[in-house]
Amino acid sequence: MESVAIKNAKEHRSISVAEFFERNKHLLGFENDQKSLLTCVREAVDNALDACEDARILPSLYIELKLIDQVNFKLIIEDNGPGIVKKNIPNIFAKLLYGSKFSLKQSRGQQGIGISAAVLYSQLTTGKPTKIYSKIDDGQIHIYDLGINIQKNEPDVVSELTVEGSGHGTRIEMFIRGKYTRGKQSVEEYLTETAVMNPFASMVYLNPEGKQFEYPRATDTLPPESKSIKPHPHGLELGILMRLMKHTASKNLTGFLTTELSRVGRGVAVAICNKAEINPKTRPKRLSRDEIEKLMKAMHKAKIQKPPTDCLSPVGEDLIKKGLKKEMNPEFIAVASRSPVVYKGHPFQIEIGIGYGGDLPAEGSINIMRFANKVPLLYQQSSCVITKAISKLDWKRYGLRQSNGSIPVGPVAIVIHMASVWIPYTSEGKEAIAAYPAIFKEITLAMQVAARKLGIYLSKKRKSHEAEERLKAFDIYGEELCIALAEITGTEVGRIQSGLKEVIRNRVGDTEIVLHGKGMEIQPTGDAEPKEPINDEEETENAADTDNEKPPQHAQSRLDIFEKEKRDTDNQTDN
Amino acid sequence: MESVAIKNAKEHRSISVAEFFERNKHLLGFENDQKSLLTCVREAVDNALDACEDARILPSLYIELKLIDQVNFKLIIEDNGPGIVKKNIPNIFAKLLYGSKFSLKQSRGQQGIGISAAVLYSQLTTGKPTKIYSKIDDGQIHIYDLGINIQKNEPDVVSELTVEGSGHGTRIEMFIRGKYTRGKQSVEEYLTETAVMNPFASMVYLNPEGKQFEYPRATDTLPPESKSIKPHPHGLELGILMRLMKHTASKNLTGFLTTELSRVGRGVAVAICNKAEINPKTRPKRLSRDEIEKLMKAMHKAKIQKPPTDCLSPVGEDLIKKGLKKEMNPEFIAVASRSPVVYKGHPFQIEIGIGYGGDLPAEGSINIMRFANKVPLLYQQSSCVITKAISKLDWKRYGLRQSNGSIPVGPVAIVIHMASVWIPYTSEGKEAIAAYPAIFKEITLAMQVAARKLGIYLSKKRKSHEAEERLKAFDIYGEELCIALAEITGTEVGRIQSGLKEVIRNRVGDTEIVLHGKGMEIQPTGDAEPKEPINDEEETENAADTDNEKPPQHAQSRLDIFEKEKRDTDNQTDN
Repeated sequence: MESVAIKNAKEHRSISVAEFFERNKHLLGFENDQKSLLTCVREAVDNALDACEDARILPSLYIELKLIDQVNFKLIIEDNGPGIVKKNIPNIFAKLLYGSKFSLKQSRGQQGIGISAAVLYSQLTTGKPTKIYSKIDDGQIHIYDLGINIQKNEPDVVSELTVEGSGHGTRIEMFIRGKYTRGKQSVEEYLTETAVMNPFASMVYLNPEGKQFEYPRATDTLPPESKSIKPHPHGLELGILMRLMKHTASKNLTGFLTTELSRVGRGVAVAICNKAEINPKTRPKRLSRDEIEKLMKAMHKAKIQKPPTDCLSPVGEDLIKKGLKKEMNPEFIAVASRSPVVYKGHPFQIEIGIGYGGDLPAEGSINIMRFANKVPLLYQQSSCVITKAISKLDWKRYGLRQSNGSIPVGPVAIVIHMASVWIPYTSEGKEAIAAYPAIFKEITLAMQVAARKLGIYLSKKRKSHEAEERLKAFDIYGEELCIALAEITGTEVGRIQSGLKEVIRNRVGDTEIVLHGKGMEIQPTGDAEPKEPINDEEETENAADTDNEKPPQHAQSRLDIFEKEKRDTDNQTDN
Repeated sequence: MESVAIKNAKEHRSISVAEFFERNKHLLGFENDQKSLLTCVREAVDNALDACEDARILPSLYIELKLIDQVNFKLIIEDNGPGIVKKNIPNIFAKLLYGSKFSLKQSRGQQGIGISAAVLYSQLTTGKPTKIYSKIDDGQIHIYDLGINIQKNEPDVVSELTVEGSGHGTRIEMFIRGKYTRGKQSVEEYLTETAVMNPFASMVYLNPEGKQFEYPRATDTLPPESKSIKPHPHGLELGILMRLMKHTASKNLTGFLTTELSRVGRGVAVAICNKAEINPKTRPKRLSRDEIEKLMKAMHKAKIQKPPTDCLSPVGEDLIKKGLKKEMNPEFIAVASRSPVVYKGHPFQIEIGIGYGGDLPAEGSINIMRFANKVPLLYQQSSCVITKAISKLDWKRYGLRQSNGSIPVGPVAIVIHMASVWIPYTSEGKEAIAAYPAIFKEITLAMQVAARKLGIYLSKKRKSHEAEERLKAFDIYGEELCIALAEITGTEVGRIQSGLKEVIRNRVGDTEIVLHGKGMEIQPTGDAEPKEPINDEEETENAADTDNEKPPQHAQSRLDIFEKEKRDTDNQTDN
């Protein structure tokens, strides 16, 4: 076997991470021409938004896609971000695993792969370098033509040039093979959903057909700044703790614990050391593996404050509501926002919105919109923890149709956003969130809150519909009945009519009708559900209520019989 | 903005691929403790099988999992492979993206990540080095204790030692955090399915409970040797062609095309050059990007023989049949094997087996077993092209229950194997195959062939069942009828009975019964389906037929009325 082993040895070699991803470009989202086009746009837009938000600049983006020949496009993206200093330009755009995003901080990018992956894909499919313009407000424009040296994963600088120019920002021009589509999973869909979740950004998009789309800024307020945090002791793996201790500048254990980790003060640090039976004054580098393991176990058991959650930058319920209303115009919206929680030392937060009815299509599966750190996820829906949580929830109890373990069916749109300092994507292409149990649980809890409101709304709606059906029967025979009664009793017809209406109104109010005016006498039947329209401004809203031009739909459906009276009482309710 | 850009610049840095995967270990299959345990076993077993098969050695593997404390395990894997020469040991086990598997060749590993990822995970969770023993038949054993220098992605040699020893093989001992389970997605399931697809391997497994499992070798014949191939012109990307030309040793274009690519002879090479209007004697390094693009376009249009497909090492229909029979004992099996096809220059082949009934559970979704290059895929079922193809097929037309676009329901097990020189996994963890259209199509075509046979079988079974129901009615009244007829006609009861049976047999044979003897008169009704039991030895088999101890199930169900005759005619059929 010696000869075989020696022969094998000659075949062994090492490849660079660039070559690895060139061979496995589908891992980065370059699975086919349509998706690849979107991936390039997305990486550039996400980068631009991150750069602006970080520098506290209201983003203004220009995006253009130009068809060069049947399959090749020129992509231009320009932003008003802070720009990039000259010496960093090549590495940022033409070296994989290079970036500023390796700390624990909520940002769209987190892997140092995205934009250089787009450059790699451009080079692979068109063989052309990518052109970068960068201005940092120092009176110059730096212009680079960049490729990637695949074997080395190093920038290949084709040309560089500096000219005079003012202002700040970055412009990218690249050639890519792609396929342009409209509709689902298109650049337009991505930009529309991005606009919904990033209303502080202004975007202009010129599509390959020469049509310009404008996504104007809806607010001048930037979201809260996301902050980077240190690793939390409860989430630390032994191997990482060992490495941190090997490279720390701290002279003793207490110093190490308080400076390198989150939420460890002197008292906690000493307590941990005592528990592990290690002198707090020990030099971290002196500790053996077994001692560090003891320390870690003590750490994991110690009572330590959760990591700060103000490092997160959630979208907010108000924005989710507005986004759903603007995009889908449903008749009813429920939103829910969980408090931040911590998983393995990483804070994260789930926000959710459910829209029902209105312009939403009644047939087919519900519409799912997934977001991670404000980035829409358009692919790999079935692999995503969000989809899994939706499928696992029992939606029948909330009034939707659903076959076992499937996505429910009906006129529903659901928006789910995960904000975190670290999103566990299922692949480098950042298309789906991995099914970690803690994330699954938080999504489920958030959905339950919102779905419960939907359930109450639907139940009321259904009852109201049933009442309406009964009232219709009265509508048919009512007038004759009143005339007959008038003849029998010798009373005036008008009095009988109004009296009967009052009786019906009481009866209906008593059992079925939900949208009741305060002016009416309501006799609760002990039903646990509130009779008032759900109007908890914090968490839910009847979308139609905010739109004063048309009355609520389920009220409208009774106008045939109680038209004027209904309007009067509704108006009273609104006061 | 200058200050912001300068501040940002200071935060930029590069991380190694080892650090990247340490942060994103879920991409490698280390999502939770249960899966991580399996991933480590799988990477080591796959490596061992590859090493043996490559060296044309019948593999003998020993696998042991020992519980160290509540959460930590010691994993031992030993093989009788060729061993590894001393100088390569550290890189193979402790450097990511190092290996011999980057060529276009069918093998279990293909990324140079697997086993060093297991070492990385071991170090991360237990902080302990991995111990390697290697013998290459040179009278020595090389023993290493290895960790990974995460920042550099280089081996960290903790200790090395050489002692005397004979034979060849490799032994790995590592400590890992894990969770031991039985049943679905367990080490046992993985080993069982591996045994099914690799019957030439012998494996012994000692589980953490001290129970030993033996998977004896079922055949002494190794599968055909898989061969590495050169890239095919039709699958070449421009960027890769440019790089190949930059680094080639060939002095002219013809030489380059014929030596570096698959299936290009002198004639084809010259034709390509002429089409691209480039002199075939040009030095490859001299060509401009635009010329290379022209050359590529000419190449893509040229008529070039498909890449060789004898580089593949499929499992074979016979083995798939045996595997299904042994594991599931279904009453019916249909197999189908597609010819190899080529996608973007990569040959691949789909093999499939469908088992029905017998010991398979009648309730719930069908049982799906996915394999890629003989490796069972136990996770990410819903992301896999195999599952997608199964869900998209209309199984109702083949007699199975299925709600729209879902996995069908019923007592069915389906085995699907993809053999290829390059499997597009959806993640580095190698758990699912990406949904490339060409793969989807081949799987669908293969399924249709097998499903059609299943459909015919089920249709016959159904009709046979209906006939049986009718015969039961005759069974109840038959004897009395015969006696009455005998009285009326004065004929002997026995003659009437046998005559009537003959009439019924003809009638039944005419319309419903499938398992008919040649000795009977059959009058076909123009039904397109063959009346004979499906017995195409090449592609399908009635599992019960191979097992002579019991008669076919649908024959058995009629024994009450035609017991002796049935057996006689069946025996005639078998001749």
